[in-house]
Amino acid sequence: MGSGCIKPAAGGRMPPSAALPRAALLGLDWGTTSLRGYLIGSGGVVIAERAADAGILQIKDRAFAAALNDLAGDWLEADSSLPIVASGMIGARQGWVEAPYVEIPAGAGNLPLHTIEDFGRPIHFVPGLSRHDENGVPDVMRGEETQIIGAYETQMQDGLYLLPGSHSKWARVTGGAITWFTTFMTGELFTALKDHTILGRMMAGSAHIPAAFARGVAYGKDPNSIMQRLFSTRALALFDDLNEIEAASYLSGLLIGSEIAEARLFVPDTSAPITIIGNPDLGERYKTALSICGLEGYQTPVGAAARGQWRIATAAGILAS
Amino acid sequence: MGSGCIKPAAGGRMPPSAALPRAALLGLDWGTTSLRGYLIGSGGVVIAERAADAGILQIKDRAFAAALNDLAGDWLEADSSLPIVASGMIGARQGWVEAPYVEIPAGAGNLPLHTIEDFGRPIHFVPGLSRHDENGVPDVMRGEETQIIGAYETQMQDGLYLLPGSHSKWARVTGGAITWFTTFMTGELFTALKDHTILGRMMAGSAHIPAAFARGVAYGKDPNSIMQRLFSTRALALFDDLNEIEAASYLSGLLIGSEIAEARLFVPDTSAPITIIGNPDLGERYKTALSICGLEGYQTPVGAAARGQWRIATAAGILAS
Repeated sequence: MGSGCIKPAAGGRMPPSAALPRAALLGLDWGTTSLRGYLIGSGGVVIAERAADAGILQIKDRAFAAALNDLAGDWLEADSSLPIVASGMIGARQGWVEAPYVEIPAGAGNLPLHTIEDFGRPIHFVPGLSRHDENGVPDVMRGEETQIIGAYETQMQDGLYLLPGSHSKWARVTGGAITWFTTFMTGELFTALKDHTILGRMMAGSAHIPAAFARGVAYGKDPNSIMQRLFSTRALALFDDLNEIEAASYLSGLLIGSEIAEARLFVPDTSAPITIIGNPDLGERYKTALSICGLEGYQTPVGAAARGQWRIATAAGILAS
Repeated sequence: MGSGCIKPAAGGRMPPSAALPRAALLGLDWGTTSLRGYLIGSGGVVIAERAADAGILQIKDRAFAAALNDLAGDWLEADSSLPIVASGMIGARQGWVEAPYVEIPAGAGNLPLHTIEDFGRPIHFVPGLSRHDENGVPDVMRGEETQIIGAYETQMQDGLYLLPGSHSKWARVTGGAITWFTTFMTGELFTALKDHTILGRMMAGSAHIPAAFARGVAYGKDPNSIMQRLFSTRALALFDDLNEIEAASYLSGLLIGSEIAEARLFVPDTSAPITIIGNPDLGERYKTALSICGLEGYQTPVGAAARGQWRIATAAGILAS
């Protein structure tokens, strides 16, 4: 299952001609649909990285230990004292063990790792974060907190952090700690609308059409409009003003524009760039969308999860000195 | 196919002990999933009403004439000069004939009926309406214009008219004409979210739970919040603060609350009741939701489509004098 690949260190922390540093930590970024393992050296350098289709949803009969051995058994065998830190949905109720949510504010220094001993050696699970708003209604993240902490490690910059995706997360970092966050179901909403409503009947293919995307963002970014503007995807098509090749990109822009319109209510200072974490292609689209909304986006180097795991493990004192 | 049923006249126009008036018009309310026929007397009284599962989507090979004969052949035979007016999606591109959209403002007096002669006698199709907003982006309705005109006939009251449903329509009537309208895909969005996103995994059954619905409305009605508040359905469940029986009603309330929050930006005077047209059960939920948002709703008597068809036919001069 585990297919290995050696990648250069992310974030430019490793000098080009240095010898490979000794591994200090095994970081697992373990979500619902994929498992990534990082062999991390001192200073947070990623020495090697592997991925497997071993997300929680793919694993039968709770065979988490077997999946981990498949991915990284050789690494673990080579160093019997290598500490293991796991972040992501693997620490949720339906994962290996539930690491209860920690209410914000929270940063690397106050994340109580949840440790299990039934793997033959300890595995430390990073807890997810929760936030309760002024109405007492909760929001949650799990896995993203580690990426945010990792991205912060690179730039040491307070401000807004954005992780686009199926469930897009926006977070505010203050003094290195996550002091606010919220979730937009933008990606999942797009898929549900495209595949299961009349809007999808207006669409052919899923090529990204920049002009249609930009048009959607520009129309979606008005406050208080998304519920009524969704239907424009259909109405424009009826008037032959949007073709079936463009319609999916337009709808995507409409939703992302609305996401930004709602999120910017929390942007205290629009002059500071927003740090974008995650898939570079999607990140680029968000950067474009932010720019249409008059905001600046900056893509953090890949590898934020590993850098976050190293930072959290360091703060928790589980690394060999 | 056509199963007949005699119903008392809607709208209280027929004196209780009067003899059945002579039929003056056959009104067809013909949508994508159903066909309704109304035998309408002078003054707009519904003498008889029939329904068939003969929506446009169910009809094969454009057999519209056969479906109409199935539903109302005996009525048509009994009176060879009975005029026919059809409203709804039957006048769309994928229907019997396309009756092009008419840009608002539009009322009973300026709806150019689109007439075909290939049925042996004329059939007059009511056109749909279009609106282009300040960005030049269109919105459309088809069928609802007739219901709004019919509801207006009953009460002769300008104001906001609301037709809840799969594609909820809000319209402003001024001087008897529709001067503004917009579409919210609330019903279809609810179904897509319930059946095809992670939110549906939080749900069991589809019973209407009033307290959960009200809670959703109250949380959804804040402006600029729906994109980020959808996820509360999941987060509340994770914290055992919303159970699987309640979750669907909560989500429904959340969406309807957001719809009202956006729509109320167009409510010029919140002291006037909003006229609700359509399914009485759904109408009652919207009335509750409006009330939570500080607005008043009023359900118009059933039969608005037939009253609208009669009014439009009268204005067009196609009824026997």
